[in-house]
Amino acid sequence: MSSTPLVVEKNELGRRGAEWISRALLEAVAGGQRASLALSGGSTTGQVYRELAKQDVPWALVDFYFVDERFVPPDSPDSNYLLAKQTLLEPLGIQPHQVFRMPGEREDREQAARDYEKLLPEVLDVVVLGMGEDGHTASLFPGHAALEEKERRVLAVVGPKPPPWRMTLTLPVLQSARKVLGLVSGAGKQDIVRRFRAGEDLPAARVKQTQWMMDEAAAGQPPEPSTNTGAKHMSTTTQPLAQFGVVGMGVMGQSLALNVADRGFRVAVWDIEPKRFEDLRHKGAPPSLQGHAALEDFVGALERPRRILMMVTAGAPVDSVMERLAPLLAPGDIVLDGGNSWFQDTRRREAAWKQKGLHFLGVGVSGGEEGARHGPSLMPGGPAEAYALVRPVLEAIAARSEEGVCVTHVGPDGAGHFVKMVHNGIEYADMQLLAETYDLLRRGLGLSADAIAGLFEQWNQGIAESFLLETTIRVLRKQDAETGKPLVEQVLDKAGQKGTGKWTVQVALDLGVSVPSIAGALDARNLSSLKEERVAAGRVLAAPQGEALSAEEKANLAAWAHDALYAARVATYAQGLRLIQAASQEYKWNVSLAEMARIWRAGCIIRARLLTPLREAFEKTPELKNLMVADGLAPVLGKMAPAWRRTVGVATRLGIPVPVLGASLAYFDSYRSPELPQNLTQAQRDAFGAHTYQRRDRPDAGFIHSDWS
Amino acid sequence: MSSTPLVVEKNELGRRGAEWISRALLEAVAGGQRASLALSGGSTTGQVYRELAKQDVPWALVDFYFVDERFVPPDSPDSNYLLAKQTLLEPLGIQPHQVFRMPGEREDREQAARDYEKLLPEVLDVVVLGMGEDGHTASLFPGHAALEEKERRVLAVVGPKPPPWRMTLTLPVLQSARKVLGLVSGAGKQDIVRRFRAGEDLPAARVKQTQWMMDEAAAGQPPEPSTNTGAKHMSTTTQPLAQFGVVGMGVMGQSLALNVADRGFRVAVWDIEPKRFEDLRHKGAPPSLQGHAALEDFVGALERPRRILMMVTAGAPVDSVMERLAPLLAPGDIVLDGGNSWFQDTRRREAAWKQKGLHFLGVGVSGGEEGARHGPSLMPGGPAEAYALVRPVLEAIAARSEEGVCVTHVGPDGAGHFVKMVHNGIEYADMQLLAETYDLLRRGLGLSADAIAGLFEQWNQGIAESFLLETTIRVLRKQDAETGKPLVEQVLDKAGQKGTGKWTVQVALDLGVSVPSIAGALDARNLSSLKEERVAAGRVLAAPQGEALSAEEKANLAAWAHDALYAARVATYAQGLRLIQAASQEYKWNVSLAEMARIWRAGCIIRARLLTPLREAFEKTPELKNLMVADGLAPVLGKMAPAWRRTVGVATRLGIPVPVLGASLAYFDSYRSPELPQNLTQAQRDAFGAHTYQRRDRPDAGFIHSDWS
Repeated sequence: MSSTPLVVEKNELGRRGAEWISRALLEAVAGGQRASLALSGGSTTGQVYRELAKQDVPWALVDFYFVDERFVPPDSPDSNYLLAKQTLLEPLGIQPHQVFRMPGEREDREQAARDYEKLLPEVLDVVVLGMGEDGHTASLFPGHAALEEKERRVLAVVGPKPPPWRMTLTLPVLQSARKVLGLVSGAGKQDIVRRFRAGEDLPAARVKQTQWMMDEAAAGQPPEPSTNTGAKHMSTTTQPLAQFGVVGMGVMGQSLALNVADRGFRVAVWDIEPKRFEDLRHKGAPPSLQGHAALEDFVGALERPRRILMMVTAGAPVDSVMERLAPLLAPGDIVLDGGNSWFQDTRRREAAWKQKGLHFLGVGVSGGEEGARHGPSLMPGGPAEAYALVRPVLEAIAARSEEGVCVTHVGPDGAGHFVKMVHNGIEYADMQLLAETYDLLRRGLGLSADAIAGLFEQWNQGIAESFLLETTIRVLRKQDAETGKPLVEQVLDKAGQKGTGKWTVQVALDLGVSVPSIAGALDARNLSSLKEERVAAGRVLAAPQGEALSAEEKANLAAWAHDALYAARVATYAQGLRLIQAASQEYKWNVSLAEMARIWRAGCIIRARLLTPLREAFEKTPELKNLMVADGLAPVLGKMAPAWRRTVGVATRLGIPVPVLGASLAYFDSYRSPELPQNLTQAQRDAFGAHTYQRRDRPDAGFIHSDWS
Repeated sequence: MSSTPLVVEKNELGRRGAEWISRALLEAVAGGQRASLALSGGSTTGQVYRELAKQDVPWALVDFYFVDERFVPPDSPDSNYLLAKQTLLEPLGIQPHQVFRMPGEREDREQAARDYEKLLPEVLDVVVLGMGEDGHTASLFPGHAALEEKERRVLAVVGPKPPPWRMTLTLPVLQSARKVLGLVSGAGKQDIVRRFRAGEDLPAARVKQTQWMMDEAAAGQPPEPSTNTGAKHMSTTTQPLAQFGVVGMGVMGQSLALNVADRGFRVAVWDIEPKRFEDLRHKGAPPSLQGHAALEDFVGALERPRRILMMVTAGAPVDSVMERLAPLLAPGDIVLDGGNSWFQDTRRREAAWKQKGLHFLGVGVSGGEEGARHGPSLMPGGPAEAYALVRPVLEAIAARSEEGVCVTHVGPDGAGHFVKMVHNGIEYADMQLLAETYDLLRRGLGLSADAIAGLFEQWNQGIAESFLLETTIRVLRKQDAETGKPLVEQVLDKAGQKGTGKWTVQVALDLGVSVPSIAGALDARNLSSLKEERVAAGRVLAAPQGEALSAEEKANLAAWAHDALYAARVATYAQGLRLIQAASQEYKWNVSLAEMARIWRAGCIIRARLLTPLREAFEKTPELKNLMVADGLAPVLGKMAPAWRRTVGVATRLGIPVPVLGASLAYFDSYRSPELPQNLTQAQRDAFGAHTYQRRDRPDAGFIHSDWS
């Protein structure tokens, strides 16, 4: 049982129920958005609706739905719609376009249910339920197969009493509702309430977030004062509860909290350093964003099910915050980890919290501070039912592109963090490709930073357009105030690697997927960090002597480099997507690569024009084995390959290292080679270690060993 | 206390002690080799020596040493030598060349001790000790600093009674002795024996493998019958105990067991499948190699400290066997894991067993079946004192090169397995380099397998000589009986990767070391395994059209490829050694790279002529940062670089993938580039993520952030 039922005096039930519903509706419309209210039938509810009609709510913003309905005409005395109409809709003068009744008069009941599914919003804001003497709620009866429904949102079912046929919302819909009030009254319910409170698995007990409210006759106990235990879950003061919480007020946490507040949600925040709340005020946090010094107060200030986003450093700090949060939470609450956590940690945490009845989502967040503040690309992974509950907030804050909002349910458990990790791996490679291109134009062609920026500006008008290319232009154009030279030339050429990039390559090895472009980018950063050694080695190992560009090379190198950059980028994305595919298969995530391409289209660091043909490729062929052979890209690669080869060839000759342009080309050439020399490898292994091999002419005959002497 | 002391009747002590020593000597000379016996002084020992002179032992094979000696002339009544001479050496007619007495007459006591160190064998076979009333043994007195000696093997010390100066073996020597008998007699010792048995940390208690034997007066208890608990540790039958045990009779376990037996050691073996012992008989196992169906019998059949080599699959099976072994072992016993275990597992296991008073060594074994049978390269890691105890066996079975025996103590805990892992990583890359070279000669130059073999035979006469090149020649020459064509051409070009190769790259990422050649080799194998995809991709992505070799290229490509192969091999070894260096620093292993090069010179898969200049480089400069800048190799690389560039250039143009030749060259070019383009990388990171950067003109001024807009 999720929370203690509220027991109220019999003649107070109508008013108290109405106040509860009106408060929930007020919170739902707080940002100015429309709210949805789903109604049940029954005598107790009628009593509440009459009181509700007196409440001060911006009714024009409320849409009315129904929890269930008998298959009778709307004017039948058995119709739930009729009850609502007489007690609530007509007294309030609700407009017809606000009312979505279940069409009980229809003859094709199955089709009627399917049609109602289309009318339902993704998530209902407020739902009113009852509880039958047999423990049913909505029209979901004990032992009925409809209780196990996972896909359908509305069903036509047969009930135990006439008229038998009914239409009902299913558990997935009820369980994902934001707020649910359950009403019970009368001594006839005493027995079922006792069974419910004993923890029996009744249909009514399955909608765990329900706040039950009952009179003393049903409860079999006197009413409690208003400071009863149930009340702590509902604000009784004028300060409404916050709709979203953020833990960790670093740069990313602050930016996301402000972003959520900007979208009209009331936000509570907590940090171990409460003075960080002042930063938020300086950054223009509205009054609807409130900081809490004590974690308990923060949790208490959130409406249920609570939605809490953690923005703390990946690793032990995440476990530590979770340990502190867990005892303060109630079943059904949802915690989101927005850091760059190792996906196996996310899998472990999600499974552990499921055991406690809590929800855990691992959410990849890309876009840096700017993205977090005004629209990141979000990659949430975890239970679908938990995602449904946070989806409105995530969709509100995410970036938007022409292809939609940049968030989607990536998949179960660690899927979101895995995809974010690969996103970062691709980012490493893409940055290194730009660095190599810059180096080749700088050292090979002798271009100035400004000239390279000009060239890149042309490229950024075409298919190579990307956020990182745009950033590169910005970087190359920046002048150093001190020296008057390009600032980029004053930056020390030492970079490091950590976390996500490294993990991408390590897990790729575990999954047997080749990601040489990403691995090469990490190596390049590691080698760059050995600045002092490089300077010393440069004195011992000379650069190629007397190499110069031919006239043809001089004239064409820039154009070749453009093609090499684009083609190598395709090879890099191909590797990353292949890795996601492999993990999705290994962990049964069912990740849609087309969706990934779509949510990367804005907000994130690797957003690029390439993502559009990429999405189209996987939309057309979801099981596509490799991006490089996609119909839309293979001809482009074929056309660009000669320039790619020339670029790598010139760099090789000049001694300008292009590890990732080169590794990407080797990946391309290996993948398109029907014959590779690993026949020799296998023969060697068999010759010195008796490791066996397969014969080319009968591979299915199994592994054999030969005497090679 | 390691084992229960034997309590015998007073007048039996001489005979029982003599029998114990003679049995130990018989076992030590069983293979026909010489044995060493180190003698103490004291009245009890004299009684034993008189009886020992009656025993039937091939005395001509025994050399006599001394445990300690007073600084007195050899004819002094205080001389231990005089006692031994009168009671044992003269009665037996021992020849002077068999007797290595401590020169107590020398005036420079320090030098006398150092000179005796040089005479001592690495490990003493049999040692006789006494126990003083203060608990001293040899001339190691309670509280004396000599007890803490770790390096010196013989010391001049001052004792508590006149004549004060003595020479004594140190604990490292005594603790590494194969068999030690401790003799105590008389009521005057009752108190110290009681303290000894209570577990007090007396000098005599530190030589844990000692079998103590005492009369009833010293023991304060009546003698036990001959079936007492102590007896189970000494064979009382005519079947001598085995000197070495092997667990796991797979191909490698069998080969190593036979190898050990061939070197004159008595070997006990165990396997979960006792029928595998029959294989051993078929392979010519001598009677000194005995299989035991029960693990308990196997352990019981080993002399102490027991030396057990596990040759079981890495991972859970190792833990499982260790769990079964642990309760059967006694303190001081040594277990060696000869599989390809993950070095962190080895570190964990070694630490856990240390807690139990047991020794654990992780031993890299390279050379395949052939090496294991006739001489592998061995890379043992673990406690130095445990290595000292297994060293004679490992040195006997290891391969030998002109540079010595191919085994050395690599370092503590996981050092041996780490080095073996990197050895395998280098092996992956070296094999891939050969495969790429073969592919280039085959597809680029159109040479037949036979022609390539002929070329490789020439190369194998020069600096490129290696076991893998030799194996390649053998493989290329082999004809397929079925088709009459080269067998290598009938082998399917699909290879896999696992374990050590993969770990090498993963741990390199953790340690921030670039190993692109090894990573590229793994990727090449992974891509080769996608045979069906490659065939399909080949239809969509065409090979370069109309590319042909110029006359110059045709004439020189083979010679260029030779240089590319050698130079890339240097780059590959440079990466592997750098990785070992980094781990040695991280884990405080103090690994000698020169020694690694020396023990890889024979027996192992990566043995190659290159290892000689490599050893010389690290002998000259142990802290050398990168093999490529070594005095002996940098000029070679400089000379070969143009050919290397041409080779990669031709392959790139022709579309023949040479990922490792190319990655190795990029590694070389990156390492020798004083300037790399990671200034752009750092600027980009600062521009989109405020990650900060260092300025080139004042790197020590710390990390700064700029506004790049």
